[in-house]
Amino acid sequence: MTVVGVIGGGQLARMMIGPAIELGIELRVLAEAPDSSARDRATAVGDYRDVATVLDFARGVDVITFDHEHVPAPVLEALLGAGIAVRPGPSALAVAQDKLHMRRVLSDLGLPVPIWAQADSAEDVTRFLSENGGRVVAKTPRGGYDGKGVAVITDASEIAEWLSAGPVLLEELVDYSRELAQLVARRPSGDIATWPVVETTQSGGVCAEVILPAPHASQRLTDLAAEIGRTVADGLGVTGVLAIELFETTDERILINELAMRPHNSGHVTMEGSVTGQFEQHLRAVADMPLGSTESRHEWATMVNVFGAMDVARYARLDDQSGVKLHNYGKEPRAARKVGHVTATGSELDDVVYRARAAAAIFTPAN
Amino acid sequence: MTVVGVIGGGQLARMMIGPAIELGIELRVLAEAPDSSARDRATAVGDYRDVATVLDFARGVDVITFDHEHVPAPVLEALLGAGIAVRPGPSALAVAQDKLHMRRVLSDLGLPVPIWAQADSAEDVTRFLSENGGRVVAKTPRGGYDGKGVAVITDASEIAEWLSAGPVLLEELVDYSRELAQLVARRPSGDIATWPVVETTQSGGVCAEVILPAPHASQRLTDLAAEIGRTVADGLGVTGVLAIELFETTDERILINELAMRPHNSGHVTMEGSVTGQFEQHLRAVADMPLGSTESRHEWATMVNVFGAMDVARYARLDDQSGVKLHNYGKEPRAARKVGHVTATGSELDDVVYRARAAAAIFTPAN
Repeated sequence: MTVVGVIGGGQLARMMIGPAIELGIELRVLAEAPDSSARDRATAVGDYRDVATVLDFARGVDVITFDHEHVPAPVLEALLGAGIAVRPGPSALAVAQDKLHMRRVLSDLGLPVPIWAQADSAEDVTRFLSENGGRVVAKTPRGGYDGKGVAVITDASEIAEWLSAGPVLLEELVDYSRELAQLVARRPSGDIATWPVVETTQSGGVCAEVILPAPHASQRLTDLAAEIGRTVADGLGVTGVLAIELFETTDERILINELAMRPHNSGHVTMEGSVTGQFEQHLRAVADMPLGSTESRHEWATMVNVFGAMDVARYARLDDQSGVKLHNYGKEPRAARKVGHVTATGSELDDVVYRARAAAAIFTPAN
Repeated sequence: MTVVGVIGGGQLARMMIGPAIELGIELRVLAEAPDSSARDRATAVGDYRDVATVLDFARGVDVITFDHEHVPAPVLEALLGAGIAVRPGPSALAVAQDKLHMRRVLSDLGLPVPIWAQADSAEDVTRFLSENGGRVVAKTPRGGYDGKGVAVITDASEIAEWLSAGPVLLEELVDYSRELAQLVARRPSGDIATWPVVETTQSGGVCAEVILPAPHASQRLTDLAAEIGRTVADGLGVTGVLAIELFETTDERILINELAMRPHNSGHVTMEGSVTGQFEQHLRAVADMPLGSTESRHEWATMVNVFGAMDVARYARLDDQSGVKLHNYGKEPRAARKVGHVTATGSELDDVVYRARAAAAIFTPAN
């Protein structure tokens, strides 16, 4: 039997558990804490930055994959040195770990990205501001997620602290009409599968809602997004599922915003919306099994995140929402914490969006 | 959090694991052996006929349910005595445990069953044979499954051994055109959900193939099957999912063949074919959550069982079968053992059946 080890015990690892069971893959998780979301399959609890901890966890595992992209390069190298397959590999993860590196690599591949620059000093920032309309986006190259480490600035002084710590990524403030995401899976053999591009809606820098497929997407847009997906997956040699967050600009271009070298919030909608959901596909890809179909099961699918608390006692209020699917991450309640999501499917977009939002609202603490 | 305990660690318990994770239900399994199919969630390994073992397992569990119907009545009563909800309850399980009792109860509910009689002697058998065309079905009331404990006889001497052990159920040999199954779920509150009736094909007394919905089913047939499902669920006060195996006769009647007070092989097809699969629905029902929609996701879905071995190494041959879904029960290979199933979905029945069969054939040991 194929044994897949996942570093990190968050909801992404948790949502691999069901598909692993059905595929007959033995899943093992290195969790951060005993109450991690994926605790059911935790065979170890410890620090993923510690080489000995990770090597010990990986004993008897055929392939290591990830719940997040934060595993340090020396740990990845130690795994490879011990003869354990690591998917995605260190070079792909390095791209996700450093946004400056990512911009360089994507530019080298000829992919469409916002105008960007590396700023090492306040002068660099001032120059970039003057060349790009006086209002730009600044990002710390490492450690940012869900809106953290990102700021819209009009003056270099606003990021003085970041600059004192090292180089900062600057980007033009893209005039976008909406955000999209392209999910892609790639096997070690090079086989690639792309899902139809989805529309994502952020709230406070955090993904709130996803629609599959992106409404009003032309064939040209859909093909272009899939082509970008294939180019990134191939160009970086990614194995597993990756997500490419995209801007659709008001002048009908697509620009790459961010990459995630793993299943991603924008892909949760594929669990019911597609013949093969992203978590099953990720396992198939990293275990080098044939990829599953990414065809849609429904005309429309909408995912809405649940924040704060997803109290099972409130399920009783779902009596009129029998078509909505629940995904509870088993997390302790905390304000604004992603604790679950719901998905609705059907043939009428308005109805599907309404039902998913209504179900998610049941779990809003004030309701 | 709701804690559901499952007695029995077979593939039915195994296929509850994924849905439990997503619903945020804590699943615990009392497995027969350390290598049971549902070993991932086994919190105890032991004999389900032993009161102390079961009570110990059930400590801290909100509701007990089942992978099979063989738990003895004294064990069920001990659970109730300890204040633990048992779903389905002892009276419903008793119906599934004794085929003579089942025939009596169904007849009392006015439900359509084959002509039947209890035989206590060879004379009883001879009389029933002479009244029913000289060729009838004999069944041991207890312990039969998958074709065991069932025989077509023309003479009382053929079941002399069964008769010496106790009463035997005799049934007319039904002239049926095909077999169907009606899946039903019922909550403690009485809420009921029925899936569209499915067609099942047996091979050697064992379920081989299931099509959702049953092809060429008239609205009258579909409604009748659903009505039978509701009457059985309500009449027996079943909580959870139950399956009703049906004969469709050549003269367009429906007769009840067997009952299963649990998710059933005929319902595996709902995992992909329906918005809510039988394992999720069973958990919702026994945990008294609102039932999910039983609407079909596709025009057609076909499930084909895999027997003998479901070797992960053969997945490589599925490259042209990207739309087929795999369910591997994680069992050691053994001739004729049910070790998994595959499901195909789509809009053309012939294509769906072909693809499911072709995928299952990949795992046939000789191939």
